[in-house]
Amino acid sequence: MDTNIKEIEQSFINLVKKMSSYGEAISLMFWDLRTGAPKKGVEQRSETIGTLSSEVFNMSVSEEMGEYLQALSAPEVQGELSEITRKMVEVSKKEFDKNKKIPADEYKEFVILTSKAESAWEEAKEKADFANFAPYLEKIVAYLRKYVERIGYEKHPYNALLDDYEPGVTVDVLDRVFGELREKLVPLVKAVTEAPAQPKTDFLFTHFSKEKQKDFSLDILKQLQYDFEAGRLDTTVHPFAATINRNDVRITTKYDEKDFRTAIFGTIHECGHALYEQNISVELIGTPLCDGTSMGIHESQSLFCENFVGRTYSFWKKNYSLLKEYSAGQFDNVSLDEFYKAINVAGPSLIRIEADEMTYSLHIILRYEIEKALINGDIEVKDLPQIWNDKMEEYLGVRPTHDGEGVLQDVHWSGGALGYFPSYALGYIYASQLKNKMNEDIPNYDELLEAGNFTPIKEWLTENVHQYGKMKKPLEIIQDITGEGLNPRYLVEYLEKKYKAVYEL
Amino acid sequence: MDTNIKEIEQSFINLVKKMSSYGEAISLMFWDLRTGAPKKGVEQRSETIGTLSSEVFNMSVSEEMGEYLQALSAPEVQGELSEITRKMVEVSKKEFDKNKKIPADEYKEFVILTSKAESAWEEAKEKADFANFAPYLEKIVAYLRKYVERIGYEKHPYNALLDDYEPGVTVDVLDRVFGELREKLVPLVKAVTEAPAQPKTDFLFTHFSKEKQKDFSLDILKQLQYDFEAGRLDTTVHPFAATINRNDVRITTKYDEKDFRTAIFGTIHECGHALYEQNISVELIGTPLCDGTSMGIHESQSLFCENFVGRTYSFWKKNYSLLKEYSAGQFDNVSLDEFYKAINVAGPSLIRIEADEMTYSLHIILRYEIEKALINGDIEVKDLPQIWNDKMEEYLGVRPTHDGEGVLQDVHWSGGALGYFPSYALGYIYASQLKNKMNEDIPNYDELLEAGNFTPIKEWLTENVHQYGKMKKPLEIIQDITGEGLNPRYLVEYLEKKYKAVYEL
Repeated sequence: MDTNIKEIEQSFINLVKKMSSYGEAISLMFWDLRTGAPKKGVEQRSETIGTLSSEVFNMSVSEEMGEYLQALSAPEVQGELSEITRKMVEVSKKEFDKNKKIPADEYKEFVILTSKAESAWEEAKEKADFANFAPYLEKIVAYLRKYVERIGYEKHPYNALLDDYEPGVTVDVLDRVFGELREKLVPLVKAVTEAPAQPKTDFLFTHFSKEKQKDFSLDILKQLQYDFEAGRLDTTVHPFAATINRNDVRITTKYDEKDFRTAIFGTIHECGHALYEQNISVELIGTPLCDGTSMGIHESQSLFCENFVGRTYSFWKKNYSLLKEYSAGQFDNVSLDEFYKAINVAGPSLIRIEADEMTYSLHIILRYEIEKALINGDIEVKDLPQIWNDKMEEYLGVRPTHDGEGVLQDVHWSGGALGYFPSYALGYIYASQLKNKMNEDIPNYDELLEAGNFTPIKEWLTENVHQYGKMKKPLEIIQDITGEGLNPRYLVEYLEKKYKAVYEL
Repeated sequence: MDTNIKEIEQSFINLVKKMSSYGEAISLMFWDLRTGAPKKGVEQRSETIGTLSSEVFNMSVSEEMGEYLQALSAPEVQGELSEITRKMVEVSKKEFDKNKKIPADEYKEFVILTSKAESAWEEAKEKADFANFAPYLEKIVAYLRKYVERIGYEKHPYNALLDDYEPGVTVDVLDRVFGELREKLVPLVKAVTEAPAQPKTDFLFTHFSKEKQKDFSLDILKQLQYDFEAGRLDTTVHPFAATINRNDVRITTKYDEKDFRTAIFGTIHECGHALYEQNISVELIGTPLCDGTSMGIHESQSLFCENFVGRTYSFWKKNYSLLKEYSAGQFDNVSLDEFYKAINVAGPSLIRIEADEMTYSLHIILRYEIEKALINGDIEVKDLPQIWNDKMEEYLGVRPTHDGEGVLQDVHWSGGALGYFPSYALGYIYASQLKNKMNEDIPNYDELLEAGNFTPIKEWLTENVHQYGKMKKPLEIIQDITGEGLNPRYLVEYLEKKYKAVYEL
């Protein structure tokens, strides 16, 4: 490599490192806003976040960046770069090319629009008044229809949006996979709903003190190898995991004293996200590769922990007595079998974020179909309530009585985040594919959970998923581990087997 | 004003606003580091803080900034600017001119040097081993001797350092004021030390639970009008106040279950700092003027609260019964008079941060004399232990047995912060001058404290001090309020009167 290219490479590395420093500051400011920033300071804080975010955007499309990328993308240079640098160039170039296509003033207008739309959505949801939110959503859809044309896409305009969240996954793939999933899940849901053997659940809703829930959560986090020297647990209204930097990955949870499941399964879910980020290879620190490779793979990690660990019989065989110690006699007359069934009740519901693992994907498929048709111009915003309610009835057998529990329930569209929802269902599918492979590699999986020995499981996930960060694309991860592409079969098999057992079908 | 100047003014305002956004991010990152950031993330966090701080430095000396300042400083333009813009230009220009004189590479070397020196100091202090710290301090002093020559000064090189912390206060002023103070305090300390009527204090050191101390602290903060919607109270090893933004001013305290005074007086002290920042005029938000005008005026606000409120008889007439409620019988047999005397014990001690209000200034005067002589080349680093110990004996009548409790006790020099110490003593002097004037304006001061009505006192401080931020220089504040310059007489009178009463002299 000639000296000049070496210098350019170093300058490029310095620039992306600077961008990642800004990212750390921005992440911390968001985390702080949600965990206890005093309310009077919020307005100025929002401006500050806006300012620093603009700076990052500007760096991503700067002339400087353009020059480095051009020099480092040249075929005769590529062979001389390390694999990490090559991937950094690839990721940065993709962002550069995309951001370059967005006129700065239009983007700024869009940011302002979504900021207003979020307030309007909140009010509209409260009042179950779709008409008041519709004008904002229309503008957002109009912007996104223009956006996908600017960005460019192959085959279907919705692919341009998918690419922001799940690179490599397209409408063709999703139509096939979601179609198969819907076909299998709808009858399963119906069977479960009509099953005579509905588990007893009343004992779940007894008073369980926040402090004791927290103590239990901390014990479980330690068991799951969450590194408290590189993280912390706080309380928020909406639980989340936030990466401040690779060695500072924080999680939050919320405590419901009338339903301990909120905290414990929420915590285990966020722990899955955090384990991913805490275990990315240290070589990637300070690069844009030091991040989950996609929303879907991220979700596969949280769902793996929540469902394949936290909702298993083996896990509770180990931890039920501990839970009993922390609770105030709540489970004295409840056998482990009864407990296991109770925490695995499933059935149709109106609200996505309260849905169980069996029905969750149907909520997503509904949203996917609507978003795709909206972006394509096949349907219009004004038609959404009707379409939403019809689909709910068709897929889940329940119909919202008002739009607050229907089309208005999610924040995503008000923020312009169309294309995001599919990743949630992909998370379920990926997780099931990983679990299927893990059954081969770790045949004593259940015994490990029963022994409280999570180490081999975590190490498998780190070796196969976590360490790579963005070095591999989502479908590359899946292919390298399982030897096949996206396949919903394992999720279907898992759900059918599990819920037929729970509901004695 | 012609359009062009208006545009330049707006661009200038945008630039300093951007700098203040960076400042907010940096402050939050520091606050977070001290309040609970996980330890493994610290290394990367430090780099991030370094990166953003460099960016701010670069903006402060940028060509862009230079052009704005030149255009806006022109005499024919100045008259057309608002008072706030004029002051912003003045403050930014001073920083620009100063920073321009520092070669970037030398400055960076100095930052690295002080970072290493802090670690070396910590170890040296631990081992009471001055010889191992001396080489670092020698380099720091050498840098600062060169620095003051670069920056320029009038009359005495130490004036260049003072200007960073207390603009307008010079060696001439300090020699006079500190000289007078020393002359009066040394005999007072001697008299108090030898007084036969030493207050009883054993009841101070009974177990007082952290939780109850916190509850009491929160009550007192509310009484002192600390705005919890624009702040919060956390726990740290070293208490501090941190301005994240004008509407987010946080304080921290620490709890010693064997000495409740640490938390309560620490909290009241930090509350004074916070009240200053929470009450700067909203017009100054987003400008470099939205900050305390100097370290000394800041300290005057914290000391005002700590000593003229928190350590007064009237304050405890109101709050002693509340303290008793929170404590576990600790004060059952202690009269208010006994309690008041106990929390006001005073006398010579070796450690500055543990010193009382009577002896504190002597610790500062000692450091001032040493720093001035060091910068001037009158003494050298190797002579410091001997000089330190001799002065301690002369001013306070006590002599350190090793350098860990002597010349190595403070962190400041390892960070290169020579010139800072005088501000602490100036805080005492300013506060006493303010209190003297307040006695005229608020003749029922003690009655207000007895009634727990702090509002008129806070409003007086806001009207005369807080609101101005950096719109007025420290001595302008004092002159405008009291009609005179810096005068140590009021501090001396206050201390003599108070301690002669406490010690029945």
